[in-house]
Amino acid sequence: AHGRRKLVSSANDEPCKKMTLYYHDILYDGGNNTANATSAAATEPTALSNSTYFGMLVVFDDPMTKRKALPVGNELPTARAQGFYFYDKKGSLNSWFAFSLVFNSTAYKGTLNLMGADLMGERTRDISVVGGTGDFFMARGIATLRTDAMEGLYYFRLQMDIKLYECYV
Amino acid sequence: AHGRRKLVSSANDEPCKKMTLYYHDILYDGGNNTANATSAAATEPTALSNSTYFGMLVVFDDPMTKRKALPVGNELPTARAQGFYFYDKKGSLNSWFAFSLVFNSTAYKGTLNLMGADLMGERTRDISVVGGTGDFFMARGIATLRTDAMEGLYYFRLQMDIKLYECYV
Amino acid sequence: AHGRRKLVSSANDEPCKKMTLYYHDILYDGGNNTANATSAAATEPTALSNSTYFGMLVVFDDPMTKRKALPVGNELPTARAQGFYFYDKKGSLNSWFAFSLVFNSTAYKGTLNLMGADLMGERTRDISVVGGTGDFFMARGIATLRTDAMEGLYYFRLQMDIKLYECYV
Repeated sequence: AHGRRKLVSSANDEPCKKMTLYYHDILYDGGNNTANATSAAATEPTALSNSTYFGMLVVFDDPMTKRKALPVGNELPTARAQGFYFYDKKGSLNSWFAFSLVFNSTAYKGTLNLMGADLMGERTRDISVVGGTGDFFMARGIATLRTDAMEGLYYFRLQMDIKLYECYV
Repeated sequence: AHGRRKLVSSANDEPCKKMTLYYHDILYDGGNNTANATSAAATEPTALSNSTYFGMLVVFDDPMTKRKALPVGNELPTARAQGFYFYDKKGSLNSWFAFSLVFNSTAYKGTLNLMGADLMGERTRDISVVGGTGDFFMARGIATLRTDAMEGLYYFRLQMDIKLYECYV
Repeated sequence: AHGRRKLVSSANDEPCKKMTLYYHDILYDGGNNTANATSAAATEPTALSNSTYFGMLVVFDDPMTKRKALPVGNELPTARAQGFYFYDKKGSLNSWFAFSLVFNSTAYKGTLNLMGADLMGERTRDISVVGGTGDFFMARGIATLRTDAMEGLYYFRLQMDIKLYECYV
Protein backbone atom coordinates (compact mmCIF):
# COMPACT_ATOMS: atom_id res chain seq x y z
CA ALA A 1 0.00 0.00 0.00
CA HIS A 2 2.90 2.29 0.66
CA GLY A 3 4.71 1.53 -2.57
CA ARG A 4 5.31 4.34 -5.01
CA ARG A 5 6.59 3.95 -8.52
CA LYS A 6 8.93 6.52 -9.98
CA LEU A 7 7.79 7.92 -13.32
CA VAL A 8 10.29 9.66 -15.55
CA SER A 9 8.89 11.54 -18.54
CA SER A 10 10.31 10.40 -21.84
CA ALA A 11 9.59 13.68 -23.59
CA ASN A 12 9.99 17.20 -22.37
CA ASP A 13 6.63 18.23 -23.79
CA GLU A 14 4.90 15.49 -21.78
CA PRO A 15 5.25 16.17 -18.07
CA CYS A 16 3.92 13.55 -15.64
CA LYS A 17 2.06 16.41 -13.95
CA LYS A 18 1.29 19.93 -15.05
CA MET A 19 -0.51 22.92 -13.61
CA THR A 20 -0.69 26.65 -14.18
CA LEU A 21 -0.90 29.00 -11.21
CA TYR A 22 -0.65 32.74 -10.74
CA TYR A 23 1.71 34.21 -8.17
CA HIS A 24 0.67 37.54 -6.63
CA ASP A 25 3.27 39.67 -4.89
CA ILE A 26 1.83 42.53 -2.85
CA LEU A 27 4.81 44.38 -1.43
CA TYR A 28 4.72 46.45 1.73
CA ASP A 29 4.92 50.06 0.55
CA GLY A 30 6.40 51.53 3.71
CA GLY A 31 3.08 53.08 4.57
CA ASN A 32 -0.39 51.90 5.30
CA ASN A 33 -0.80 48.63 3.38
CA THR A 34 0.29 46.27 6.15
CA ALA A 35 -3.16 44.64 6.11
CA ASN A 36 -2.98 43.75 2.41
CA ALA A 37 0.75 43.31 1.89
CA THR A 38 2.03 39.74 1.61
CA SER A 39 5.74 40.56 1.22
CA ALA A 40 8.25 43.01 2.62
CA ALA A 41 11.82 44.06 1.92
CA ALA A 42 14.21 42.76 4.57
CA THR A 43 17.21 44.63 3.14
CA GLU A 44 17.71 47.92 1.30
CA PRO A 45 19.07 48.19 -2.23
CA THR A 46 22.87 48.55 -2.26
CA ALA A 47 25.06 51.19 -3.87
CA LEU A 48 25.17 49.03 -7.03
CA SER A 49 21.50 49.71 -7.67
CA ASN A 50 20.58 52.03 -10.54
CA SER A 51 16.88 52.01 -9.80
CA THR A 52 17.32 48.25 -10.18
CA TYR A 53 17.15 47.41 -6.46
CA PHE A 54 20.44 45.44 -6.57
CA GLY A 55 20.70 43.70 -3.19
CA MET A 56 17.13 44.27 -2.00
CA LEU A 57 15.85 40.99 -0.53
CA VAL A 58 12.11 40.47 -0.19
CA VAL A 59 10.50 37.84 2.06
CA PHE A 60 7.04 36.70 0.97
CA ASP A 61 4.02 34.63 1.91
CA ASP A 62 2.16 35.17 -1.34
CA PRO A 63 -1.15 33.74 -2.57
CA MET A 64 -1.17 31.44 -5.62
CA THR A 65 -4.41 31.24 -7.61
CA LYS A 66 -5.78 29.29 -10.55
CA ARG A 67 -7.18 32.39 -12.21
CA LYS A 68 -5.68 35.85 -12.49
CA ALA A 69 -7.81 37.49 -9.82
CA LEU A 70 -6.82 37.69 -6.19
CA PRO A 71 -8.96 35.65 -3.78
CA VAL A 72 -12.09 37.54 -2.78
CA GLY A 73 -13.48 37.66 0.76
CA ASN A 74 -12.97 34.33 2.53
CA GLU A 75 -11.95 32.50 -0.61
CA LEU A 76 -8.77 30.55 -0.07
CA PRO A 77 -5.87 30.67 -2.50
CA THR A 78 -4.93 27.42 -4.26
CA ALA A 79 -1.56 27.49 -2.53
CA ARG A 80 0.81 29.85 -0.72
CA ALA A 81 4.24 30.67 -2.07
CA GLN A 82 6.60 31.09 0.89
CA GLY A 83 10.17 32.18 0.36
CA PHE A 84 12.23 35.07 -0.87
CA TYR A 85 13.58 36.86 -3.91
CA PHE A 86 16.22 39.48 -4.33
CA TYR A 87 17.30 41.76 -7.17
CA ASP A 88 20.79 41.13 -8.49
CA LYS A 89 21.57 43.25 -11.53
CA LYS A 90 23.08 46.70 -11.91
CA GLY A 91 21.73 47.81 -15.27
CA SER A 92 18.31 46.20 -15.47
CA LEU A 93 15.69 44.46 -13.39
CA ASN A 94 16.64 40.86 -12.69
CA SER A 95 15.92 38.68 -9.71
CA TRP A 96 16.52 35.31 -8.06
CA PHE A 97 13.93 33.19 -6.27
CA ALA A 98 13.84 30.34 -3.78
CA PHE A 99 10.51 29.29 -2.29
CA SER A 100 8.04 26.59 -1.43
CA LEU A 101 4.57 26.20 -2.87
CA VAL A 102 2.48 25.07 0.09
CA PHE A 103 -0.74 23.22 -0.81
CA ASN A 104 -3.29 22.48 1.87
CA SER A 105 -6.63 21.80 0.21
CA THR A 106 -8.80 18.83 -0.65
CA ALA A 107 -7.08 18.73 -4.05
CA TYR A 108 -3.49 18.61 -2.78
CA LYS A 109 -1.58 18.47 0.47
CA GLY A 110 2.15 18.92 0.29
CA THR A 111 4.85 21.23 -0.96
CA LEU A 112 6.99 21.88 -4.03
CA ASN A 113 10.40 23.48 -3.59
CA LEU A 114 11.76 25.75 -6.31
CA MET A 115 14.79 27.89 -7.03
CA GLY A 116 16.33 29.75 -9.90
CA ALA A 117 17.07 32.94 -11.75
CA ASP A 118 14.13 35.09 -12.81
CA LEU A 119 15.64 36.66 -15.94
CA MET A 120 13.08 39.43 -16.11
CA GLY A 121 14.26 40.64 -19.50
CA GLU A 122 13.09 37.40 -21.12
CA ARG A 123 9.45 36.86 -22.04
CA THR A 124 9.55 33.44 -20.38
CA ARG A 125 12.19 31.99 -18.11
CA ASP A 126 12.58 28.63 -16.42
CA ILE A 127 13.43 27.84 -12.83
CA SER A 128 13.90 24.41 -11.22
CA VAL A 129 11.51 22.38 -9.12
CA VAL A 130 14.11 20.64 -6.99
CA GLY A 131 11.93 18.57 -4.66
CA GLY A 132 8.53 17.97 -3.20
CA THR A 133 6.72 16.50 -0.22
CA GLY A 134 3.31 14.99 0.53
CA ASP A 135 1.30 14.64 -2.67
CA PHE A 136 4.38 15.91 -4.50
CA PHE A 137 6.74 13.41 -2.83
CA MET A 138 10.21 13.65 -4.40
CA ALA A 139 8.99 15.51 -7.49
CA ARG A 140 11.33 17.31 -9.89
CA GLY A 141 10.63 19.56 -12.83
CA ILE A 142 10.59 23.02 -14.30
CA ALA A 143 8.46 26.09 -13.70
CA THR A 144 8.14 28.54 -16.58
CA LEU A 145 7.57 32.11 -15.41
CA ARG A 146 5.90 34.92 -17.35
CA THR A 147 5.30 38.43 -16.03
CA ASP A 148 1.54 38.74 -16.28
CA ALA A 149 1.05 42.16 -14.67
CA MET A 150 3.02 44.92 -13.01
CA GLU A 151 1.00 47.59 -11.28
CA GLY A 152 3.08 50.39 -9.89
CA LEU A 153 5.94 49.52 -7.57
CA TYR A 154 4.07 47.31 -5.14
CA TYR A 155 2.18 44.65 -7.10
CA PHE A 156 3.19 42.16 -9.74
CA ARG A 157 1.75 38.89 -10.94
CA LEU A 158 3.62 35.99 -12.49
CA GLN A 159 2.12 33.14 -14.45
CA MET A 160 3.83 29.93 -13.38
CA ASP A 161 3.51 26.87 -15.60
CA ILE A 162 4.65 24.06 -13.36
CA LYS A 163 5.72 20.91 -15.18
CA LEU A 164 6.94 17.87 -13.29
CA TYR A 165 9.06 15.35 -15.20
CA GLU A 166 9.90 13.04 -12.32
CA CYS A 167 6.91 11.95 -10.26
CA TYR A 168 6.36 9.24 -7.68
CA VAL A 169 2.88 7.84 -8.05
CA ALA B 1 36.19 0.62 -8.20
CA HIS B 2 34.64 3.99 -8.77
CA GLY B 3 31.30 2.68 -9.94
CA ARG B 4 28.23 3.59 -7.99
CA ARG B 5 24.79 2.15 -8.50
CA LYS B 6 21.73 4.33 -8.12
CA LEU B 7 19.15 2.94 -5.72
CA VAL B 8 15.59 4.22 -5.87
CA SER B 9 13.30 3.21 -3.03
CA SER B 10 10.19 1.43 -4.18
CA ALA B 11 8.18 2.34 -1.11
CA ASN B 12 8.04 5.60 0.76
CA ASP B 13 8.20 3.84 4.10
CA GLU B 14 11.48 2.18 3.09
CA PRO B 15 14.20 4.77 2.57
CA CYS B 16 17.58 3.59 1.28
CA LYS B 17 19.10 5.47 4.22
CA LYS B 18 17.59 6.89 7.38
CA MET B 19 18.84 8.78 10.40
CA THR B 20 17.44 10.93 13.18
CA LEU B 21 19.36 13.97 14.34
CA TYR B 22 18.60 16.91 16.62
CA TYR B 23 19.17 20.46 15.45
CA HIS B 24 20.05 23.01 18.15
CA ASP B 25 19.63 26.69 17.41
CA ILE B 26 21.24 28.99 19.98
CA LEU B 27 20.44 32.51 18.84
CA TYR B 28 22.54 35.54 19.70
CA ASP B 29 20.48 37.48 22.24
CA GLY B 30 21.94 40.89 21.55
CA GLY B 31 23.87 40.74 24.79
CA ASN B 32 26.49 38.52 26.32
CA ASN B 33 25.99 35.10 24.77
CA THR B 34 28.41 35.49 21.86
CA ALA B 35 30.52 32.60 23.22
CA ASN B 36 27.60 30.15 23.20
CA ALA B 37 25.49 31.47 20.36
CA THR B 38 25.59 29.55 17.08
CA SER B 39 23.24 31.77 15.08
CA ALA B 40 22.49 35.46 14.68
CA ALA B 41 19.89 37.62 13.01
CA ALA B 42 21.29 39.34 9.91
CA THR B 43 18.11 41.38 9.33
CA GLU B 44 15.45 42.93 11.57
CA PRO B 45 11.77 41.93 11.47
CA THR B 46 9.80 44.10 9.03
CA ALA B 47 6.67 46.16 9.58
CA LEU B 48 4.60 43.09 8.63
CA SER B 49 5.67 41.34 11.82
CA ASN B 50 3.10 40.96 14.59
CA SER B 51 5.52 39.45 17.06
CA THR B 52 6.02 36.92 14.27
CA TYR B 53 9.42 38.21 13.11
CA PHE B 54 8.27 38.49 9.46
CA GLY B 55 11.41 39.20 7.45
CA MET B 56 13.99 38.40 10.14
CA LEU B 57 16.73 36.30 8.53
CA VAL B 58 18.98 34.21 10.77
CA VAL B 59 22.35 32.78 9.69
CA PHE B 60 23.45 29.67 11.57
CA ASP B 61 26.28 27.22 12.14
CA ASP B 62 24.34 24.93 14.46
CA PRO B 63 25.33 21.62 16.06
CA MET B 64 23.45 18.43 15.12
CA THR B 65 23.43 15.62 17.66
CA LYS B 66 22.19 12.04 17.87
CA ARG B 67 20.66 12.58 21.30
CA LYS B 68 18.74 15.54 22.62
CA ALA B 69 21.55 16.97 24.73
CA LEU B 70 24.03 19.53 23.46
CA PRO B 71 27.61 18.30 23.15
CA VAL B 72 29.46 18.53 26.48
CA GLY B 73 33.03 19.78 26.83
CA ASN B 74 35.15 18.71 23.88
CA GLU B 75 32.56 16.31 22.52
CA LEU B 76 32.00 16.88 18.82
CA PRO B 77 28.54 17.17 17.32
CA THR B 78 27.52 14.50 14.78
CA ALA B 79 27.29 17.19 12.10
CA ARG B 80 26.98 20.94 11.68
CA ALA B 81 23.97 22.54 10.06
CA GLN B 82 25.14 25.58 8.10
CA GLY B 83 22.66 27.86 6.41
CA PHE B 84 19.83 30.24 7.15
CA TYR B 85 16.19 30.53 8.00
CA PHE B 86 13.81 33.45 7.98
CA TYR B 87 10.31 34.07 9.30
CA ASP B 88 7.68 34.71 6.66
CA LYS B 89 4.20 34.95 8.15
CA LYS B 90 2.20 37.87 9.49
CA GLY B 91 -0.24 36.16 11.83
CA SER B 92 1.71 33.23 13.22
CA LEU B 93 5.20 31.82 13.48
CA ASN B 94 6.31 30.21 10.24
CA SER B 95 9.73 29.94 8.70
CA TRP B 96 11.71 28.81 5.67
CA PHE B 97 15.06 26.98 5.73
CA ALA B 98 17.94 26.31 3.37
CA PHE B 99 21.08 24.68 4.72
CA SER B 100 23.75 22.03 4.46
CA LEU B 101 24.38 19.25 6.94
CA VAL B 102 28.15 18.96 7.10
CA PHE B 103 29.48 15.59 8.29
CA ASN B 104 33.16 15.20 9.07
CA SER B 105 33.60 12.16 11.31
CA THR B 106 34.75 8.57 11.00
CA ALA B 107 31.12 7.60 10.36
CA TYR B 108 30.45 10.01 7.49
CA LYS B 109 32.26 12.58 5.42
CA GLY B 110 30.16 14.71 3.11
CA THR B 111 27.17 17.00 3.01
CA LEU B 112 23.43 16.91 2.52
CA ASN B 113 21.66 19.97 1.11
CA LEU B 114 18.12 20.79 2.23
CA MET B 115 15.47 23.41 1.67
CA GLY B 116 11.81 23.95 2.37
CA ALA B 117 9.05 25.52 4.39
CA ASP B 118 9.01 24.94 8.14
CA LEU B 119 5.25 25.14 8.73
CA MET B 120 5.59 25.63 12.46
CA GLY B 121 1.87 25.27 13.09
CA GLU B 122 2.00 21.60 12.03
CA ARG B 123 3.15 18.91 14.43
CA THR B 124 5.42 17.51 11.71
CA ARG B 125 6.42 19.07 8.41
CA ASP B 126 8.55 17.85 5.53
CA ILE B 127 11.34 19.63 3.70
CA SER B 128 13.37 18.39 0.73
CA VAL B 129 16.84 16.88 0.65
CA VAL B 130 17.82 18.14 -2.80
CA GLY B 131 21.37 16.86 -3.10
CA GLY B 132 24.41 15.47 -1.38
CA THR B 133 28.16 15.11 -1.68
CA GLY B 134 30.87 12.76 -0.43
CA ASP B 135 29.29 9.79 1.37
CA PHE B 136 25.92 11.26 0.39
CA PHE B 137 26.84 11.64 -3.28
CA MET B 138 23.79 12.75 -5.29
CA ALA B 139 21.31 11.77 -2.55
CA ARG B 140 17.70 12.93 -2.54
CA GLY B 141 14.98 12.56 0.07
CA ILE B 142 12.84 14.13 2.73
CA ALA B 143 13.53 15.45 6.22
CA THR B 144 10.63 15.45 8.64
CA LEU B 145 10.89 18.21 11.25
CA ARG B 146 9.33 18.25 14.71
CA THR B 147 9.75 21.02 17.27
CA ASP B 148 11.29 19.20 20.19
CA ALA B 149 11.93 22.11 22.56
CA MET B 150 11.59 25.88 22.72
CA GLU B 151 13.27 27.58 25.63
CA GLY B 152 12.63 31.29 25.79
CA LEU B 153 13.39 33.37 22.74
CA TYR B 154 16.92 32.18 22.08
CA TYR B 155 16.95 28.38 21.98
CA PHE B 156 14.97 25.81 20.08
CA ARG B 157 15.56 22.20 19.13
CA LEU B 158 14.17 20.37 16.12
CA GLN B 159 14.05 16.64 15.64
CA MET B 160 14.99 15.88 12.03
CA ASP B 161 14.15 12.47 10.61
CA ILE B 162 16.23 12.30 7.47
CA LYS B 163 15.06 9.75 4.91
CA LEU B 164 16.87 9.29 1.63
CA TYR B 165 14.94 7.65 -1.22
CA GLU B 166 17.55 8.02 -3.94
CA CYS B 167 21.03 6.84 -2.96
CA TYR B 168 24.16 6.07 -4.91
CA VAL B 169 25.94 3.15 -3.31
CA ALA C 1 11.49 15.07 -31.80
CA HIS C 2 10.84 16.32 -28.32
CA GLY C 3 11.87 13.11 -26.61
CA ARG C 4 14.75 13.19 -24.18
CA ARG C 5 16.42 10.19 -22.65
CA LYS C 6 17.61 10.30 -19.05
CA LEU C 7 21.24 9.30 -18.64
CA VAL C 8 22.50 8.29 -15.21
CA SER C 9 26.24 7.93 -14.83
CA SER C 10 27.30 4.53 -13.63
CA ALA C 11 30.58 5.75 -12.14
CA ASN C 12 31.31 8.88 -10.20
CA ASP C 13 34.48 9.53 -12.15
CA GLU C 14 32.50 9.50 -15.41
CA PRO C 15 30.05 12.39 -15.49
CA CYS C 16 27.64 12.63 -18.45
CA LYS C 17 28.84 16.21 -18.80
CA LYS C 18 31.79 18.09 -17.37
CA MET C 19 33.17 21.60 -17.55
CA THR C 20 35.56 23.81 -15.63
CA LEU C 21 34.75 27.47 -15.16
CA TYR C 22 36.19 30.28 -13.07
CA TYR C 23 33.98 32.37 -10.83
CA HIS C 24 35.09 35.96 -10.24
CA ASP C 25 33.67 37.89 -7.31
CA ILE C 26 34.38 41.62 -7.39
CA LEU C 27 32.86 43.00 -4.22
CA TYR C 28 31.72 46.60 -3.82
CA ASP C 29 34.29 48.21 -1.54
CA GLY C 30 32.08 50.94 -0.15
CA GLY C 31 33.87 53.50 -2.23
CA ASN C 32 34.45 54.12 -5.89
CA ASN C 33 34.36 50.72 -7.56
CA THR C 34 30.65 50.69 -8.43
CA ALA C 35 31.53 50.50 -12.14
CA ASN C 36 33.62 47.34 -11.74
CA ALA C 37 31.93 45.66 -8.80
CA THR C 38 29.70 42.68 -9.55
CA SER C 39 28.58 41.95 -5.98
CA ALA C 40 27.60 43.88 -2.89
CA ALA C 41 26.90 43.15 0.76
CA ALA C 42 23.18 43.41 1.54
CA THR C 43 23.69 42.89 5.29
CA GLU C 44 26.40 43.76 7.79
CA PRO C 45 28.39 41.18 9.73
CA THR C 46 26.75 40.36 13.08
CA ALA C 47 28.16 40.46 16.60
CA LEU C 48 29.24 36.82 16.18
CA SER C 49 31.84 37.85 13.61
CA ASN C 50 35.51 37.75 14.64
CA SER C 51 36.77 39.25 11.41
CA THR C 52 34.91 36.30 9.88
CA TYR C 53 31.93 38.31 8.57
CA PHE C 54 29.39 35.97 10.29
CA GLY C 55 26.00 37.01 8.92
CA MET C 56 27.19 39.18 6.04
CA LEU C 57 25.10 38.30 2.98
CA VAL C 58 26.42 39.19 -0.48
CA VAL C 59 24.28 39.37 -3.62
CA PHE C 60 26.15 38.79 -6.87
CA ASP C 61 25.91 38.85 -10.66
CA ASP C 62 29.40 37.52 -11.27
CA PRO C 63 31.15 36.62 -14.52
CA MET C 64 32.18 33.00 -15.17
CA THR C 65 35.06 32.41 -17.56
CA LYS C 66 36.82 29.45 -19.15
CA ARG C 67 40.26 30.84 -18.38
CA LYS C 68 41.49 32.58 -15.26
CA ALA C 69 41.46 36.09 -16.67
CA LEU C 70 38.51 38.43 -16.45
CA PRO C 71 36.82 39.27 -19.76
CA VAL C 72 38.60 42.11 -21.55
CA GLY C 73 36.80 44.95 -23.30
CA ASN C 74 33.61 43.75 -24.97
CA GLU C 75 34.43 40.07 -24.50
CA LEU C 76 31.47 38.24 -23.00
CA PRO C 77 31.85 35.88 -20.06
CA THR C 78 30.99 32.21 -20.66
CA ALA C 79 28.14 32.52 -18.17
CA ARG C 80 26.91 34.70 -15.33
CA ALA C 81 26.61 33.40 -11.78
CA GLN C 82 23.57 35.05 -10.18
CA GLY C 83 22.75 34.45 -6.55
CA PHE C 84 24.09 35.01 -3.07
CA TYR C 85 26.51 33.81 -0.44
CA PHE C 86 26.84 34.58 3.22
CA TYR C 87 29.48 33.92 5.85
CA ASP C 88 28.41 31.63 8.67
CA LYS C 89 31.27 30.81 11.02
CA LYS C 90 32.54 32.49 14.17
CA GLY C 91 36.15 31.32 14.28
CA SER C 92 37.14 31.04 10.64
CA LEU C 93 36.05 31.99 7.14
CA ASN C 94 33.27 29.74 5.90
CA SER C 95 30.40 30.48 3.58
CA TRP C 96 27.23 29.14 2.00
CA PHE C 97 26.15 29.62 -1.62
CA ALA C 98 22.98 29.39 -3.67
CA PHE C 99 22.99 30.59 -7.27
CA SER C 100 22.21 30.01 -10.90
CA LEU C 101 24.72 29.72 -13.70
CA VAL C 102 23.08 31.53 -16.61
CA PHE C 103 24.35 30.55 -20.07
CA ASN C 104 23.32 32.57 -23.09
CA SER C 105 25.77 31.90 -25.90
CA THR C 106 25.95 29.87 -29.08
CA ALA C 107 27.46 27.01 -27.06
CA TYR C 108 24.75 26.81 -24.39
CA LYS C 109 21.44 28.41 -23.51
CA GLY C 110 19.97 27.58 -20.14
CA THR C 111 20.72 27.56 -16.46
CA LEU C 112 22.17 25.34 -13.76
CA ASN C 113 21.02 25.79 -10.16
CA LEU C 114 23.45 25.11 -7.32
CA MET C 115 23.56 25.26 -3.55
CA GLY C 116 25.78 24.14 -0.73
CA ALA C 117 28.37 24.86 1.91
CA ASP C 118 31.65 26.41 0.83
CA LEU C 119 33.93 24.95 3.50
CA MET C 120 36.71 27.42 2.87
CA GLY C 121 39.15 25.62 5.16
CA GLU C 122 39.23 22.63 2.78
CA ARG C 123 41.38 22.63 -0.34
CA THR C 124 38.40 21.41 -2.38
CA ARG C 125 34.75 21.24 -1.40
CA ASP C 126 31.66 19.99 -3.16
CA ILE C 127 28.30 21.65 -3.58
CA SER C 128 25.19 20.27 -5.30
CA VAL C 129 23.84 20.98 -8.75
CA VAL C 130 20.17 20.52 -7.94
CA GLY C 131 18.53 21.29 -11.27
CA GLY C 132 18.84 22.81 -14.67
CA THR C 133 16.86 24.31 -17.52
CA GLY C 134 17.23 24.75 -21.29
CA ASP C 135 20.29 22.87 -22.53
CA PHE C 136 20.74 21.64 -18.96
CA PHE C 137 17.13 20.44 -18.66
CA MET C 138 16.68 18.57 -15.35
CA ALA C 139 20.41 18.09 -14.78
CA ARG C 140 21.88 17.06 -11.44
CA GLY C 141 25.45 16.79 -10.27
CA ILE C 142 28.28 18.16 -8.19
CA ALA C 143 30.47 21.24 -8.45
CA THR C 144 33.90 21.03 -6.87
CA LEU C 145 35.17 24.41 -5.68
CA ARG C 146 38.78 25.49 -5.22
CA THR C 147 39.95 28.92 -4.13
CA ASP C 148 42.12 29.99 -7.02
CA ALA C 149 42.95 33.56 -5.95
CA MET C 150 42.22 36.03 -3.19
CA GLU C 151 43.33 39.58 -3.80
CA GLY C 152 42.75 41.86 -0.85
CA LEU C 153 39.27 42.06 0.61
CA TYR C 154 37.34 42.70 -2.59
CA TYR C 155 38.30 40.07 -5.15
CA PHE C 156 38.40 36.31 -5.12
CA ARG C 157 38.31 33.67 -7.81
CA LEU C 158 37.00 30.13 -7.48
CA GLN C 159 37.69 27.27 -9.83
CA MET C 160 34.46 25.33 -10.32
CA ASP C 161 34.62 21.83 -11.76
CA ILE C 162 31.05 21.13 -12.74
CA LYS C 163 30.21 17.45 -13.16
CA LEU C 164 26.72 16.34 -14.12
CA TYR C 165 25.74 12.75 -13.32
CA GLU C 166 22.13 12.90 -14.40
CA CYS C 167 21.57 14.38 -17.85
CA TYR C 168 18.63 14.43 -20.22
CA VAL C 169 19.89 14.17 -23.77
